[in-house]
Amino acid sequence: MIDGAILVGAEQRQATTRFSGIDPSTGATLTPDFSSAGVDAVADAAALAEAAFVDYAATDLETRASFLEAIADAIVAIGDELIDRAVQESGLPRPRIEGERGRTVGQLRLFATVVRQGDWLDATIDPALPDRAPLPRPDLRRVNVAVGPVAVFGASNFPLAFSVAGGDTASALAAGCPVIVKGHPAHPGTGELVARAIASAVAKCGLPAGTFSYLPGDTNDLGGALVADPRIKAVGFTGSRGGGLALVKIASQRAEPIPVYAEMSSINPVILFPAALAARGDALASAFVQSLTMGAGQFCTNPGLVLAIDGPALDAFVTAAGAALSEVRPATMLTPGIHASYEKGVATLAQHGAVKTVARGCSTDGANQAVGALFDTDAAAFLADSALGHEVFGSSAVIVRCKDSAELTRVVAQLEGQLTATLHVDAGDHAEAAKLLPTLAGRVGRILANGWPTGVEVSHAMVHGGPFPATSDGRTTSVGTLAIYRFLRPVCFQNLPAELLPTAIGPDNAWNVARRIDGIREASPR
Amino acid sequence: MIDGAILVGAEQRQATTRFSGIDPSTGATLTPDFSSAGVDAVADAAALAEAAFVDYAATDLETRASFLEAIADAIVAIGDELIDRAVQESGLPRPRIEGERGRTVGQLRLFATVVRQGDWLDATIDPALPDRAPLPRPDLRRVNVAVGPVAVFGASNFPLAFSVAGGDTASALAAGCPVIVKGHPAHPGTGELVARAIASAVAKCGLPAGTFSYLPGDTNDLGGALVADPRIKAVGFTGSRGGGLALVKIASQRAEPIPVYAEMSSINPVILFPAALAARGDALASAFVQSLTMGAGQFCTNPGLVLAIDGPALDAFVTAAGAALSEVRPATMLTPGIHASYEKGVATLAQHGAVKTVARGCSTDGANQAVGALFDTDAAAFLADSALGHEVFGSSAVIVRCKDSAELTRVVAQLEGQLTATLHVDAGDHAEAAKLLPTLAGRVGRILANGWPTGVEVSHAMVHGGPFPATSDGRTTSVGTLAIYRFLRPVCFQNLPAELLPTAIGPDNAWNVARRIDGIREASPR
Repeated sequence: MIDGAILVGAEQRQATTRFSGIDPSTGATLTPDFSSAGVDAVADAAALAEAAFVDYAATDLETRASFLEAIADAIVAIGDELIDRAVQESGLPRPRIEGERGRTVGQLRLFATVVRQGDWLDATIDPALPDRAPLPRPDLRRVNVAVGPVAVFGASNFPLAFSVAGGDTASALAAGCPVIVKGHPAHPGTGELVARAIASAVAKCGLPAGTFSYLPGDTNDLGGALVADPRIKAVGFTGSRGGGLALVKIASQRAEPIPVYAEMSSINPVILFPAALAARGDALASAFVQSLTMGAGQFCTNPGLVLAIDGPALDAFVTAAGAALSEVRPATMLTPGIHASYEKGVATLAQHGAVKTVARGCSTDGANQAVGALFDTDAAAFLADSALGHEVFGSSAVIVRCKDSAELTRVVAQLEGQLTATLHVDAGDHAEAAKLLPTLAGRVGRILANGWPTGVEVSHAMVHGGPFPATSDGRTTSVGTLAIYRFLRPVCFQNLPAELLPTAIGPDNAWNVARRIDGIREASPR
Repeated sequence: MIDGAILVGAEQRQATTRFSGIDPSTGATLTPDFSSAGVDAVADAAALAEAAFVDYAATDLETRASFLEAIADAIVAIGDELIDRAVQESGLPRPRIEGERGRTVGQLRLFATVVRQGDWLDATIDPALPDRAPLPRPDLRRVNVAVGPVAVFGASNFPLAFSVAGGDTASALAAGCPVIVKGHPAHPGTGELVARAIASAVAKCGLPAGTFSYLPGDTNDLGGALVADPRIKAVGFTGSRGGGLALVKIASQRAEPIPVYAEMSSINPVILFPAALAARGDALASAFVQSLTMGAGQFCTNPGLVLAIDGPALDAFVTAAGAALSEVRPATMLTPGIHASYEKGVATLAQHGAVKTVARGCSTDGANQAVGALFDTDAAAFLADSALGHEVFGSSAVIVRCKDSAELTRVVAQLEGQLTATLHVDAGDHAEAAKLLPTLAGRVGRILANGWPTGVEVSHAMVHGGPFPATSDGRTTSVGTLAIYRFLRPVCFQNLPAELLPTAIGPDNAWNVARRIDGIREASPR
């Protein structure tokens, strides 16, 4: 059911201030309209979340894992209504949305297995050494605890997998934190359907009502009030650099500053090494254009920058990529705002004196259509104007011609922090690539070879993060199981009576978790 | 040798601007005088650190561990000159300084064992699944890498263990980060001796000169320039709330904001539960005063707040603690500035309308002497005036009388973040303590029972951290082996050719580290 409600725990409310979703493929306003949550709803949801925190954080591993699975089941149970609505609100093709649903429930279930296993507790025991000289050592035990209520800001470009029940929500709930989602106004119906699924799982599992709240809205004030609320202890965000930095600022100015995990901006350099470029430039050009234009280029990991050493092989790549792009049909972008930003970014590049337009995609008269754009410049120009390194969200990329590997290295060294860097290398390129890798590793969260950065696996080894401005906190990831650590902090217990110890570090290891004893960690349970 | 030099890598410089240390027990100026490093030295040290970073971060585990041990050896080899100078500059007793040297070299050696073991790399492998439907999974491998050059600000109160070669330096070097230490002006001779020991270990181990630099100085501008330098990627600090927050602000305003790990301010509540208080109030009073006055109270974990339910048992405790304190002889404080702040803080409490002075320590005419101070108030007054919860660095404590356990819980819930909380409990108190524990765990980094918070073990389970303002980043610790993670970030490698992979996640596990494969972590190597 979609009726535009705010969900403050188990309570449904309607606000008098309303907003509507639109179908970006037509520009048409969709029904029904939605409550625009105000500061009263923020305060009430935060109070409920705070009240829920101790009990939710104390749930045993099985209860919490089952809850995550119940959310997944409830999302699947919505059925076609969810898929239809998400397609309508996002302009994304149906197979993509179906795949995204699979990813969303898959990551909830993956976090359930992570919760059950218990490695994330980092249970650590330094046994007492009563006879140690000159001083005895007390019994010391450390465990990770949930930080408190978490505010989640969903992304426009993943209405399911990075939104109401997306990676931030899944990892925060897995960590034991109540979650308050600020719904993205680009997909309010999708958001409400998923929010109701989570709320139903909270009720089914008998958890405190404040474990989850959902605040739809289209104002910056709503998000600002949520981050400023003293009961919120961490923030997850995926979106623009401006939006992320605004939240970081609010969080840092609180009486108690809190961490903001904002995934913001990346142009994802692709480096074509000489041997690979010479051997398979045409294939690379075709695959590059496919990655660039997939989903109208609306991925954080979209390859927006190509670096290579100038020469005939690069000329051939540019020609082939331009030819491929010119045949790509336009695709509907997520919102009129995103489309307008894309058009503006492309126009700025097209008008830049040091930039040549290689090709555009097929033209169109449709609403909010992304027409692909490929530009060509040289390293001197790129190094001279940082604006050429700014993200243009959508299917736009800049090819930077470098004189030699030294100049290419200078370009890499000057790059801002990135989510990904891609190397196309053949065996003959490995020596040069090895030289570049340490510099790249200092700039990015994920380095991939002979593939494309779009398509982010949800797994244990994934890092979807990177130094600023890729994210506001390069020590972690927003995709994959490592994300749970964003919402945990360690607490040490010294000489506590056994009956007062948290279960994970208690004397009988009732949860059967792997513990580190005197510095030696046990293997994970299977 | 002490000659007042700045150490910019292997280069020794003298600055024309000079400052001097003093002997706080007499107020006398000590010789020689010292260079006050300027922004030129900051820039040169940062450039050297950046140049050293890739090579130092790439050192194998044995090389890096041996380097940490070489530093420890070099510190021990200084011998009595170090002890004499530290005693002279700090006013701390010789046995305390000797013990602190042991702790300093002990934690360097502990980090060497941590480095060798390699668990901190968090080597994680999700093997490729080429036949997975609908899409194959690539080979994904994740490893922790060093963040880059780290700035360390030593503490006045631990001239060895939290200073030039203290916990921040040890953990940053262990992580693979070059370190630039801003020397504390309270112990410049001690600092220089230790800095030369580290520089000698850098040379002995054949490491890049920029692996370590030492910038003595007594200006805030020096520290500000260091944190603002774009080549610095993280900051470790132990000191005042004002100092820490100033660095946090500078770091957040950089073009690339960086993490600041500032350990700042804590009053370390001690909660006397009814059964324990009734059974052993006198013994608790005596032990409390001993913890309060140890080292002139100049510990981050000094017990500055006592909470208990009002009644005859608490009356008896207060009387006994007052009597014990009145016999404690004063002790020299670290600096005239710290002494002046202590006197001011004590005077503010003494003049507070809702606060009664229970006792003062023995009076004195000596220079910079801390005379202990014990105050008594009630929960209503404490809840009404947040100033009563501000840290007074030194041997001053406030006892807060609560009407009942509900009021005590309200006091705990209103506390700012703390490094520690101490429970004195007997079996009959466990039920009440259990109720309070979740709230406490949300406020503090370490909870201890039936002991005293002073005395921080350097081990795997230790957390010397806590929510703001105890630290600027409550997700970690500045004491113990967990501190290494402050200076690491994860990087994922996708489908990289085997010869391009970092050793820790390479195909033959040449370092023999524990790896997490498909989510299942191996046991630590022994």
